[in-house]
Amino acid sequence: MKATPALLENELKKFGPIRSNNIQVNKVCVGFVEFEVASAVQKAIEGEPETLVIKDAVKILLQGLGEDINREGLLKTPLRVAKALREGTRGYKQNVKDIVQGALFPEAGLESGVGHAGGAGGLVIVRDLDFFSYCESCLLPFQVKCHVCYVPSGQQVLGLSKVSRVANVFAKRLQDPQRLADEVCSALQHGIMPTGVAVILQCLHIHFPSFESTCLDSNHLGWVKLLVTSGSGVFKNEKADIWGDFLSLLKLRDINVESTHSRNSADQCWCPSRSFSKTGPANVGMNAAVASILRSLGEDTSRKELVGTPTHFLKWLMNFKNSNLEMKLNGIVHGTIDPFKISGDASDNEEHVHSELNLSFCSQCEHHILPFHGVVHIGYFCAEGVNPIGKSHLQSIVHFYGFKLQVQERLTRQIAETVSLLSGGDVMVVVEANHTCMISRGIEKFGSNTATIAVLGRFSTDPAARALFLERIPNYSSSGG
Amino acid sequence: MKATPALLENELKKFGPIRSNNIQVNKVCVGFVEFEVASAVQKAIEGEPETLVIKDAVKILLQGLGEDINREGLLKTPLRVAKALREGTRGYKQNVKDIVQGALFPEAGLESGVGHAGGAGGLVIVRDLDFFSYCESCLLPFQVKCHVCYVPSGQQVLGLSKVSRVANVFAKRLQDPQRLADEVCSALQHGIMPTGVAVILQCLHIHFPSFESTCLDSNHLGWVKLLVTSGSGVFKNEKADIWGDFLSLLKLRDINVESTHSRNSADQCWCPSRSFSKTGPANVGMNAAVASILRSLGEDTSRKELVGTPTHFLKWLMNFKNSNLEMKLNGIVHGTIDPFKISGDASDNEEHVHSELNLSFCSQCEHHILPFHGVVHIGYFCAEGVNPIGKSHLQSIVHFYGFKLQVQERLTRQIAETVSLLSGGDVMVVVEANHTCMISRGIEKFGSNTATIAVLGRFSTDPAARALFLERIPNYSSSGG
Repeated sequence: MKATPALLENELKKFGPIRSNNIQVNKVCVGFVEFEVASAVQKAIEGEPETLVIKDAVKILLQGLGEDINREGLLKTPLRVAKALREGTRGYKQNVKDIVQGALFPEAGLESGVGHAGGAGGLVIVRDLDFFSYCESCLLPFQVKCHVCYVPSGQQVLGLSKVSRVANVFAKRLQDPQRLADEVCSALQHGIMPTGVAVILQCLHIHFPSFESTCLDSNHLGWVKLLVTSGSGVFKNEKADIWGDFLSLLKLRDINVESTHSRNSADQCWCPSRSFSKTGPANVGMNAAVASILRSLGEDTSRKELVGTPTHFLKWLMNFKNSNLEMKLNGIVHGTIDPFKISGDASDNEEHVHSELNLSFCSQCEHHILPFHGVVHIGYFCAEGVNPIGKSHLQSIVHFYGFKLQVQERLTRQIAETVSLLSGGDVMVVVEANHTCMISRGIEKFGSNTATIAVLGRFSTDPAARALFLERIPNYSSSGG
Repeated sequence: MKATPALLENELKKFGPIRSNNIQVNKVCVGFVEFEVASAVQKAIEGEPETLVIKDAVKILLQGLGEDINREGLLKTPLRVAKALREGTRGYKQNVKDIVQGALFPEAGLESGVGHAGGAGGLVIVRDLDFFSYCESCLLPFQVKCHVCYVPSGQQVLGLSKVSRVANVFAKRLQDPQRLADEVCSALQHGIMPTGVAVILQCLHIHFPSFESTCLDSNHLGWVKLLVTSGSGVFKNEKADIWGDFLSLLKLRDINVESTHSRNSADQCWCPSRSFSKTGPANVGMNAAVASILRSLGEDTSRKELVGTPTHFLKWLMNFKNSNLEMKLNGIVHGTIDPFKISGDASDNEEHVHSELNLSFCSQCEHHILPFHGVVHIGYFCAEGVNPIGKSHLQSIVHFYGFKLQVQERLTRQIAETVSLLSGGDVMVVVEANHTCMISRGIEKFGSNTATIAVLGRFSTDPAARALFLERIPNYSSSGG
């Protein structure tokens, strides 16, 4: 078999003219077969009708947030969001059969004796597969840690990496955790035809900030956790002993065995968007924009689970409307706080570095319209006998700059500059964050996190002061758990 | 802009006929623009000359291992290896400029006051990026945890995910840790033009099993760890205070600050393949096959660092030659051990479950010709007063079935069946493993790991006995660290 253009043509034919309803099926000439072609295809996707519809919708959303869509930081945001959404839901177009085919290997079972082993009866477990999926209730990404167990039959086993590939087909859609577990389980059952399949998903969904309580409570952030299970064949019975074998090998994964067999909780939607009472009249244009995004991803907006999605997504998004915050917090930050008194002639040994650690924040990345969230640490020189700035004031400042479309570098600078006005100029701010865009776009770097530092006044010239403050910062946990 | 075939054609033109020296630049007709095209391109790659050369080379290697290349489990291995190697070294064809372009965002620095913050002077740190790369000394993948810090200048910042993308361009090549760090650092310095860039890589390379010592020492496995740093601009001076700020925010990452500034250790190659004295006359055909793989990946086999690579790779690979082991271990397992005495009429309460945990193993996945390694736990019923099977005997059995081309399911079954012959039939075996193919192929699931279970005799019918044994198994650490 030699690489000829005919070979490519042949491969392309297999997919058939599936898009003929959307774009004209014309003929294009390509001159070479290479990895770069995939990149060219990606670029061509930028011009597809679905992409253009999502781009337009994102522009409407940005305008609804009161943003200037021609501001340089936002110029490419609509395209970036459109591409991320389409790539992140590519599972609609993928086929499990293509994945499993050719990855089933003959494997003998026990040669003699009683028991289960190898290709006929031995348990095969693939643990700790990290994915993200999109919540069908609010369109935000959620994290999934996936554990799969199957019992081979028919003297064959599946290539281990295919378990991950199959699960990813269903993760890359708008999903609900229980349906995702059921679909992965069912696809593997039909693909491998084993004695049984069990799927356990540990899902994490970001909490919606409740703006009203945010100003009072710094612990409002965090995660909604949900554990769901699905079983077929010998795992169909949730009380079957074989579940115990699987669960025993998932130690230290925060799985409460008791809770794994109660599916009732999943009957209610886990998405925090549901817990909000309906707010005032929604922006009709923005609602229509979100609905058009759903349609462009290939979804039916009249599907029961999607009816409320535009409202839920906007409930999230409007937390980051700039002017909301200006109105509500402006007074606190710039007006009503008594400026922190500086002892004008304090010498070095009369001052010490005061620090406020782990102030939580939630913000929205202006490049991807996706959450980034974490903690802010603030250090400043504080003269002896002078009261430090109150923690709630600092938390208000953090929220003031957090609840808008942001980038982490700017957030860090803005907090530092504002605290500097209150504390006298010697300020150090460290922001540690998880960016949803780092997991829910192509790079999918699940463990990664970011830190940004701003140093003002004495901190910029005194390495010992910086070291003193940095030492106090606890290790950042990026697990999201 | 509407999606037309002309658009795709235009995108393709930008890449130019770069492959014209390899395949004929003809014209092909494609009918639609879709994600599936990328998949079609992948399939077409299967027919490219480089892929075919690697396929043929892998066949020679398999034959050199004494394997039947027409055995069903191995039929697609040559193609699978060829695709994995080409995809895993795609960095040779990627361009940092394309990645950084369009992802530099204007971002103000401090508006007033003294210090560093935001787009001009504030530190930006991206931590815990997981990659794999290929060791240029032995062609095995090695794991990289990458931490990058840069100091923006020129009032602009780089989109955070691009740090990961740029690093990946250089990871996806045959590499040495120090050169990888230097190339990432240099590319970011030239791409962002910041005040400085610092890169820290924590690299893990699998140890080469020393067959002679393996039979005696079960702790021979493990990792070669290497920490390398690279700095430019304000990080050029390894003693600069700013390194301290970066390192402070890499807490609990097993980074010994003292060791980060000594590059001398990296002057010697870290790859364990170098520590072996030259063994007997190499197989000329297999050597030539590895060299042809290197050339097909675009490398120059006369480059100093690559001269020994074929020999080093074969030193690894030949550990898994089936017949070696038959010869050396056959006697131990099937002959010289006194069979474990079973007390024929022992009632249940005269026996107890004996277990031998954490027997290390190293094996080679026959689907990908890549290592998988981890621990084996063996449980069996042992009558009162009868001596259990010696740990070294069990370890020998594990190595006997480990050191060959394998799949984990079969390994588990074979160990269980062999122990069953010695212990009387009531055996349970759990194998926990990390598969290099799960990180160094497309899915890149760094935290994932697998477990397989075989149950024979009483274990297959007694859930309580299984639970008792499974409870004793400690939590498996998949970190590789």
